Amino acid sequence: MDIAAINLQEKLAGFSDHWSPKIIARMNEYHFKLSKFQGDFVWHAHDDTDEVFIVLEGEMTIEFRDGMIDLKAGEMIVVPKKVEHRPFAKEECKIMLVEPAGTINTGDAGGEMTAEDEVWI
Amino acid sequence: MDIAAINLQEKLAGFSDHWSPKIIARMNEYHFKLSKFQGDFVWHAHDDTDEVFIVLEGEMTIEFRDGMIDLKAGEMIVVPKKVEHRPFAKEECKIMLVEPAGTINTGDAGGEMTAEDEVWI
Repeated sequence: MDIAAINLQEKLAGFSDHWSPKIIARMNEYHFKLSKFQGDFVWHAHDDTDEVFIVLEGEMTIEFRDGMIDLKAGEMIVVPKKVEHRPFAKEECKIMLVEPAGTINTGDAGGEMTAEDEVWI
Repeated sequence: MDIAAINLQEKLAGFSDHWSPKIIARMNEYHFKLSKFQGDFVWHAHDDTDEVFIVLEGEMTIEFRDGMIDLKAGEMIVVPKKVEHRPFAKEECKIMLVEPAGTINTGDAGGEMTAEDEVWI
């Protein structure tokens, strides 16, 4: 049987870089990813997809053009497609992301914070 | 701005029935649901979709035709489409489910444990 439990803490222990999501599971055409956020990310939007952030540990904020939303462990948010947003975290924050396979972390913005999009851990 | 943080504990506190998933968020064509499991569910499969279980609190087991997988808080699993499975939990276990909007909890099996499929909380 090739179905197995995926332990989030074990996966999180396997990497330390920030803003570089790692894929831990695939469901249909979607990826579940873990990421560690610290510092400031870039303004961007995803033209074709909503994006889910689930905070596993720590605190983060997402800035929108018309306000900011604080998120802490045990909270999640859906950022609708086409909505510009900028995540940031003062201290390291551990996140699960859910989005279609192939989604690029910097969306339409590109630039040096763009991560490889198919890294499994 | 109609984007908001969703607090999982607050949502979980809003219902007490077992095996009756409540929708808390929509991402594209998918629903994020919370459910409380206790006791035995029915054997079933979902012909058209994989299904994700993320354990938030407690412990549960999924029985497959060729084995069982135990899951505890902080673990997740992807049950592939068409694969028969039967979840059960000795004590109450709190779960997040991710699956396409319209997915029925009992899949192809139907029966009295079939829950309404569009209940938001």
